[in-house]
Amino acid sequence: MSPVASFDDMAWTDSTCPVARTLDLVGDRWSLLIVRDAMDGARSFTDFQQRTGVARNILTDRLRRLVDRGLLERETATSGRRQVYVLTDAGRDLFTVIVAMRQWGERHAFAEHETHSVLVDESGLQLARLCPTDSHGDPADVGSTTVLRDIRDI
Amino acid sequence: MSPVASFDDMAWTDSTCPVARTLDLVGDRWSLLIVRDAMDGARSFTDFQQRTGVARNILTDRLRRLVDRGLLERETATSGRRQVYVLTDAGRDLFTVIVAMRQWGERHAFAEHETHSVLVDESGLQLARLCPTDSHGDPADVGSTTVLRDIRDI
Repeated sequence: MSPVASFDDMAWTDSTCPVARTLDLVGDRWSLLIVRDAMDGARSFTDFQQRTGVARNILTDRLRRLVDRGLLERETATSGRRQVYVLTDAGRDLFTVIVAMRQWGERHAFAEHETHSVLVDESGLQLARLCPTDSHGDPADVGSTTVLRDIRDI
Repeated sequence: MSPVASFDDMAWTDSTCPVARTLDLVGDRWSLLIVRDAMDGARSFTDFQQRTGVARNILTDRLRRLVDRGLLERETATSGRRQVYVLTDAGRDLFTVIVAMRQWGERHAFAEHETHSVLVDESGLQLARLCPTDSHGDPADVGSTTVLRDIRDI
């Protein structure tokens, strides 16, 4: 799949690593919180401001950056009065990253007695646990996988 | 599961959201690149410095923070001469987040002609695509899921 935006101006931290490129594009707390809120229905500047509590100048910067990088699109609201921000297909595809972060947080960032929000399906039940699997469908983890520097090594 | 570290000193951005807590703990580019490199065998300060290219003062800060937050443990190398950093169970469990970011990057952050590193299993083949599924095992996405503010709402 081709990237949705031109990345000609990106100074990649580690240009051949997909993890690093993703982090360069969305790897700061505010960008991913904005994406989280857009997935949860936030559309206007005020929506994002109220939900994240981020300073307005930072929010302005992050929204612009997410638009430039092809994660959000600016649209005019049906009222015709204000601009809203809508996830692009690439932005919506971050759902897997957000779910992975949510599930990790549920497992490791809460004490027993603390409550937290939950992501539920249309039956009102929580999603299944995301489990990386290898090419045979067996569970994969740090110990059973290796990074090859270049796809041509395969 | 209880958290592996005491988070008493954390000023959570959005304390009931597991996504936000995860971002508070590891949601900056360098922390997740350090975790990525630890998964790929980096252990010493020099390993991390060379792989990420991060400034030494930032690396020192991020390693300390990852230890404080229970993602890395300091150990003395078998030579007895230097300290190394090893992922804790909670750190290793970030594998799913890293894989999700890698696969998103592969889909959206590279042009057709660009090559990138790949994560392979013991057969030398790439992992299956991570797909969130609902409580029935059906594909789940932004449109089919909802965030409930508190687990007691279920």
